[in-house]
Amino acid sequence: MKGNVLVGQSGGPTAVINSSLAGVYKTAMERGFTRVYGMRYGIQGFMQEQYVDLADHIKNELDLELLKRTPSAYLGTCRYKLPEIHDDKSVYERIFELLDKLDIEVFVYIGGNDSMDTIRKLSDYALLTGARQRFVGCPKTIDNDLAITDHTPGFGSAAKYIATSTKEIICDAMGFSYNKKNVTIIEIMGRNAGWLTGASALAAGEDCEGPDMIYLPEISFDVDTFVAKVKDLLEKKDVVVVAVSEGIHNAEGKYICEFTSGSETKDAFGHIQMTGTASYLAQVVSQQLGCKTRAVELSTLQRAAAHMASLVDVNEAFAVGGATIKAADEGASGVMVVIERVSDDPYQSTTGVYDVHRIANAEKVVPRDWINKEGDGVEEEFLDYVRPLIQGHLNAMMVSGLPRHLSMDLKNYAWSK
Amino acid sequence: MKGNVLVGQSGGPTAVINSSLAGVYKTAMERGFTRVYGMRYGIQGFMQEQYVDLADHIKNELDLELLKRTPSAYLGTCRYKLPEIHDDKSVYERIFELLDKLDIEVFVYIGGNDSMDTIRKLSDYALLTGARQRFVGCPKTIDNDLAITDHTPGFGSAAKYIATSTKEIICDAMGFSYNKKNVTIIEIMGRNAGWLTGASALAAGEDCEGPDMIYLPEISFDVDTFVAKVKDLLEKKDVVVVAVSEGIHNAEGKYICEFTSGSETKDAFGHIQMTGTASYLAQVVSQQLGCKTRAVELSTLQRAAAHMASLVDVNEAFAVGGATIKAADEGASGVMVVIERVSDDPYQSTTGVYDVHRIANAEKVVPRDWINKEGDGVEEEFLDYVRPLIQGHLNAMMVSGLPRHLSMDLKNYAWSK
Repeated sequence: MKGNVLVGQSGGPTAVINSSLAGVYKTAMERGFTRVYGMRYGIQGFMQEQYVDLADHIKNELDLELLKRTPSAYLGTCRYKLPEIHDDKSVYERIFELLDKLDIEVFVYIGGNDSMDTIRKLSDYALLTGARQRFVGCPKTIDNDLAITDHTPGFGSAAKYIATSTKEIICDAMGFSYNKKNVTIIEIMGRNAGWLTGASALAAGEDCEGPDMIYLPEISFDVDTFVAKVKDLLEKKDVVVVAVSEGIHNAEGKYICEFTSGSETKDAFGHIQMTGTASYLAQVVSQQLGCKTRAVELSTLQRAAAHMASLVDVNEAFAVGGATIKAADEGASGVMVVIERVSDDPYQSTTGVYDVHRIANAEKVVPRDWINKEGDGVEEEFLDYVRPLIQGHLNAMMVSGLPRHLSMDLKNYAWSK
Repeated sequence: MKGNVLVGQSGGPTAVINSSLAGVYKTAMERGFTRVYGMRYGIQGFMQEQYVDLADHIKNELDLELLKRTPSAYLGTCRYKLPEIHDDKSVYERIFELLDKLDIEVFVYIGGNDSMDTIRKLSDYALLTGARQRFVGCPKTIDNDLAITDHTPGFGSAAKYIATSTKEIICDAMGFSYNKKNVTIIEIMGRNAGWLTGASALAAGEDCEGPDMIYLPEISFDVDTFVAKVKDLLEKKDVVVVAVSEGIHNAEGKYICEFTSGSETKDAFGHIQMTGTASYLAQVVSQQLGCKTRAVELSTLQRAAAHMASLVDVNEAFAVGGATIKAADEGASGVMVVIERVSDDPYQSTTGVYDVHRIANAEKVVPRDWINKEGDGVEEEFLDYVRPLIQGHLNAMMVSGLPRHLSMDLKNYAWSK
C-alpha cells in the first residue's frame, strides 16, 4: 500500500500552474497513492500545518477540468527560501516530522528557481538522514528562465496573451493615425530574461506589422539612441509601437524605471516593482519629439489571463505534473521534471527528469544570436522556438458570460442566496 | 437603381465597431445599393477625399466574419467637430460636393456623442438646401453614455473583458495572501460615467467574491474615507481588491489623478490622459497603512480586446449597423438607430430609430439609486441591467495560435515571403 503525496506551489503564479496541480493529483490517484495533500501557501504555510486533503476539493472530473482553467495558485503560494542545512537543522527536523506524521511518501513542489532550491535541500537532507521521502520538482514560470528544460510551463500562455494583446493594441493605434503621429510603448514582464518581451514579435504576420522595435533586458538600453530611432521611424510612418521589457537598463546597469520621478513601489514581497519603464519612455518621447504617446503596462494579466491560455502549454503543464508522480513512484528523488523538445515542425515534446543540483539557481536568458544585431528585435530562430508553444486554445467554461474557476474557499456558495 | 452608401467611423474605437461596419455593408448590398464607400479616418479624412470602395476589401463572407472579429476602427477614426452651419458654410459645401460626386444616397456615421452631432448638422444642412442625401447615426461607445438607447454597442464587450480580468486579478492576489496583507487597485475607463467601472462587480459569483469596493465617478471621492475603509477591511481579510474609475474626483471636482506628481500626459488628441489614479491611491495606501499594494490599469485593452468580445454585443452591433441602412432606405434622415430592451429575462432586444436632435451631446450616467448608499458599490438593478449584455462568446479565428484580424493595408502580404 502506497503512502501519501504532498504537493505545493511556490513563487509567482501562472495561467497554467493549476494544470500541473491537476496532473499531479490525477496521476497520484491513478497510481494508487492513498491521499494527496496540498500545502496552503507552499512550504511556509505547511510548516505551520496549513494543508488540505485535495479529495475534499477536487470531487470529480469536472472539478479537475475547472482547476486546469483556473489562473494563479489554487493552493496559494509563498516566497520562502530554506536555510542551508548546516545553518539551521531545526527547520528540517520540523518539516520531516510533519511529513512523517502525514505519512508522506512523495513531495512535489511546483515552482521556479527558488522552488528547485527547496527540492535540492530537502532531498539532500533526506539522503543525509536516511528519510524515506522522495522529492521532485515541477517547473513553472512565465519568465522561461529555468535551465535545462527546453521551456517552462506558463511561458507559452503568457507569450500567447502578450502576442494577442500586442496585435489588439496595434489595431487600436492604427485606427487613430490620421494626421496624428503616435507612439505606443508596451511594457512586458521579465526582469533579466527577455523571453516574454520577445514574444511580442509573434504579433507580426499577414494581418499585422508587429512592434517596430523590441527591447530585451539582455542588451543595454540607451535612451538617446532609442529616441533617435523613434524619430527616424516617425519620418516614414505615423504609428510606432515599441515593446520593452520592464528590466531594460543602461550600460551602467541602472534600470530605466529607476529614472522615474515617483517614489519606488514594492510588491507584496518587498521586491521593488519594475514599473514605470513605459511611462518614463513615453514621457521622454513626448517631450523630445513633441508627438502623442501612450504607455501600456500589460501587468498582472500576463500571468493570470487563463482565458487566453495556450492549449500546448496547458497540456504540457498537466503532463509535467503527472511526470513528477511517475518519476517519484519509480524511485527518483532530487530531480526536476523537464520538457524535451523532440521536433520543431511538427512540434513534439516529451518529459524527462534531471538532477535538480544542476538546475537550481541558474538563469537562462535569450541567446545573443537570437536577438538582432541592432539589439532592437528578435531573429527567426527565436520565433521558431516560441511559436509552437502558443498553439491551440482551451475553451473556458463560461457561466453567466464569464470564465468559471475553481475556488477553494467559495465552492459551497449557495445557489439561491 | 439605388445610389451609393458612404460609411465612416468616429471617436474612440471599440471591440465591435467593425461588426457595425459589417452590418452596414451586408444590408446595403442586400438592399441593392450600388456601392459602399468607406471614409478613411471619418469625416476629416473624407473631406480630403480619403475613401475606399469596400468591395475591394471585403471580398467574401469570410472577410465579413473576420471584420466582425477585428478590434479598433477598420476604416480609421477621427475626432473632428463640424462647425455650426452659420459659422462656416464652406465646410458643408465641400462635403456635399463630394457626396454628389460619389453619388451618395445614404451617409452612415458610427460613433458616440460627437458623431451624432455630425449627423445632426449634416441632416439639418440637407434639409435647408434640399439635398437628397439621408443621414443616419449608428451608436458606438464603450462608455455607454449615450442617451435614449438602452445601451451602446461596444459596452457589453468592454464590460465582459473588465469582469473577466477582474476575476483573474483577484485570483492572482488571493494566491499571494499568506501572512501578507495586500491591496490591489484596478483602474477602469470612463471619465464621467461609471458604467464600465460598475461592470467589475460582475466578477462576484459562486467562485469569486468580486471587488471589495467600487468607486464610480458619479459620486465624489474622499481619499481619507477610502483609506479608512481599506484599513477596516484589512482587519477582517488579507486581500483587498478595489475598482476605481479613472474619472473619480473629490468634492471640489478635482480629479484624483491630478494629485500625481508626474507631469501630465496627453492622448493622441491632446486630451489629458486620465492615468495614474490607481498608482496614486496605491501609493497613499502603502504609505499610510504600510501594506503591500499593486496598481493595475486595464488601459487600451478595455476597448480593443476583441478576443473577449460578448456575442450579444457583436450581434447587436451588427444589427444596429444593418438597421441604419434599413432606416435610410425607408426614407429616414437625421436619426440614430437605438437599441430597445424588450425583456430582461430572458433577454431580448430590438432596434428603433430616434431623432438625433434629442440625442446629440447628452450624457447618460449611472442613476444614483443603482449605486449603493455608501457610494462604494453597485446595486442589483445595475447588475440585472448589465449581465445580459456580456453573454455568449464569438470564437476568434485562430491562425498560428493568434486571433486573425482583417487588415486594410496588409491583406496582400505574400504567404511565401
